[in-house]
Amino acid sequence: MGSGLLTSVLDLLGVFANGLLGGAVARSKGMDLFGFGALGLISGLGGGIIRDVLLQHGTPVALVHPAYILTALAGAGVAFVIRIEHQAWDRLFLLVDAAAISLWATAGALITLAAGLGWLPAVLLGTITATGGGITRDVILTRVPAVFTEGPLYATVAMFVAAIQVAFAKTLGAQDATGTTVAILAGITLRLIAYRRGWRLPRGLDWQPGRRVARGASRPESEDHL
Amino acid sequence: MGSGLLTSVLDLLGVFANGLLGGAVARSKGMDLFGFGALGLISGLGGGIIRDVLLQHGTPVALVHPAYILTALAGAGVAFVIRIEHQAWDRLFLLVDAAAISLWATAGALITLAAGLGWLPAVLLGTITATGGGITRDVILTRVPAVFTEGPLYATVAMFVAAIQVAFAKTLGAQDATGTTVAILAGITLRLIAYRRGWRLPRGLDWQPGRRVARGASRPESEDHL
Amino acid sequence: MGSGLLTSVLDLLGVFANGLLGGAVARSKGMDLFGFGALGLISGLGGGIIRDVLLQHGTPVALVHPAYILTALAGAGVAFVIRIEHQAWDRLFLLVDAAAISLWATAGALITLAAGLGWLPAVLLGTITATGGGITRDVILTRVPAVFTEGPLYATVAMFVAAIQVAFAKTLGAQDATGTTVAILAGITLRLIAYRRGWRLPRGLDWQPGRRVARGASRPESEDHL
Repeated sequence: MGSGLLTSVLDLLGVFANGLLGGAVARSKGMDLFGFGALGLISGLGGGIIRDVLLQHGTPVALVHPAYILTALAGAGVAFVIRIEHQAWDRLFLLVDAAAISLWATAGALITLAAGLGWLPAVLLGTITATGGGITRDVILTRVPAVFTEGPLYATVAMFVAAIQVAFAKTLGAQDATGTTVAILAGITLRLIAYRRGWRLPRGLDWQPGRRVARGASRPESEDHL
Repeated sequence: MGSGLLTSVLDLLGVFANGLLGGAVARSKGMDLFGFGALGLISGLGGGIIRDVLLQHGTPVALVHPAYILTALAGAGVAFVIRIEHQAWDRLFLLVDAAAISLWATAGALITLAAGLGWLPAVLLGTITATGGGITRDVILTRVPAVFTEGPLYATVAMFVAAIQVAFAKTLGAQDATGTTVAILAGITLRLIAYRRGWRLPRGLDWQPGRRVARGASRPESEDHL
Repeated sequence: MGSGLLTSVLDLLGVFANGLLGGAVARSKGMDLFGFGALGLISGLGGGIIRDVLLQHGTPVALVHPAYILTALAGAGVAFVIRIEHQAWDRLFLLVDAAAISLWATAGALITLAAGLGWLPAVLLGTITATGGGITRDVILTRVPAVFTEGPLYATVAMFVAAIQVAFAKTLGAQDATGTTVAILAGITLRLIAYRRGWRLPRGLDWQPGRRVARGASRPESEDHL
């Protein structure tokens, strides 16, 4: 009960924060009111909708329960009215967003397991639930999705959280709330540390079978293969 | 009967006009025949397909009834053969397109209500039905979707039409054709007036709590937040 | 049996090759490990997933059978570790990819027919199965999809293969393996010849009713209509 309510509040807080973020991006692109609403909905609800469309187990939850649409639009509406200052909300947003992606990753993983799929799709769809909205928003804005290229661990946190959740669900059962709690706390912690310390994933390695000596030292940076 | 036939004719006319538009865009991008076909299909059928995929109530109508694919391809094919002049068809296209987005918005709203969803998703999916094809086409062409940023009311018209349709359906019942007629006529009228007068939605407001005095006058245009 | 095994091996080889290609593209864009994985999955599995989502006949096969996800990730992982040289694998990739798009086109067409749809959607979804992953990858990288604009016949090969498969299935029945064999061999042959000879589809024609004389010779290249 208590945990169900906490989950719902966190979930909608995450939708609101990401709706706000979508609206703020719409502002930076000079969009009109419709653009604010569209980006708010995509940022706040996109990940869960993509997961539900991929699972094909009925109309996406985000469309069925009006609270989701209204909350995402409310976030975008606030961003429409108020020009939000970085300094004023960076820290708060960081925390709410870390909690939201962690929660969404656990929810996506559990829903996938409940649909009868294995651990690998569960980790994948948990990650997509947490990151799909932001990726779709970036693609619509014709930017290469930020989570593929830059910045401190983000999608990795979601994948890590989903993996913890799946491991707990496979051992203690999907009903047990311990795994969700542990996974979310671990996700928030990892995200905050990664953000503060600038932890990043490695980019492509350069191992070339049989050519290491010949080319190793003098390879120009800009040389693109494929 | 008569109204069913009129609806079908309008629907396919809209598919044809948007297939033609997709083909014209393909031409402006120097695409090959396959690109013409692909953009014609996306422009003409994308909105309805997105709606049906989101609703998850069976294979999208646009894939089941061959008339849809053929009509969209026919539009793209005409755009492939003939270099269409602005002057020759601007007015005609404006009218057909205004009728098509209005019809699609009512159809999308009614289908969503029939799937058991509430008024809010019905308005949303009505709007997506009318605008989703154009948005997808723009994203594939790596343009920020035009309906988010510029031009006289377009997506707003679709939303307005869907809302009228939903209001009528909730009061007179979904079978009653009055609401559809009123909504479509209102949509065409609003679209034509908005186009002629250049009505637009507002962009983001600039209210900043506690900072209005300090920054109001001198804020540079290019300053992006977030 | 034997043909079923061959089909599975070809299918997964295609997934691996396209996962590798996705990873190579991720490298050329300076993405991190997560980007490699994401582009590998999208390139290797995107077409089949889009087909299954459009058909709405259950969770996409690529998510249900772990071999698909693992194979696509393995391809991306190889591209992450090894900087692949053009010369070393161009020919091999060309052949594997030609076989893969041909196989995917036949599979997509047969699955669509099995879902009860007609020949036209079967050809369309066969083509989408073969090309959807690459198109999605290009869109996410904010490039206009290569198959719409340039290069030797590719999507056309897929469409051609799907059409042959549908024609055989409609005459000999969907169980008969002759059509699949003929279609795949024809697809590989056409693709290799088109690649070697640089066969392309035509771009838009310039027929303008009533204006041919007046403008034919002096039309500037950059003049965009619409």
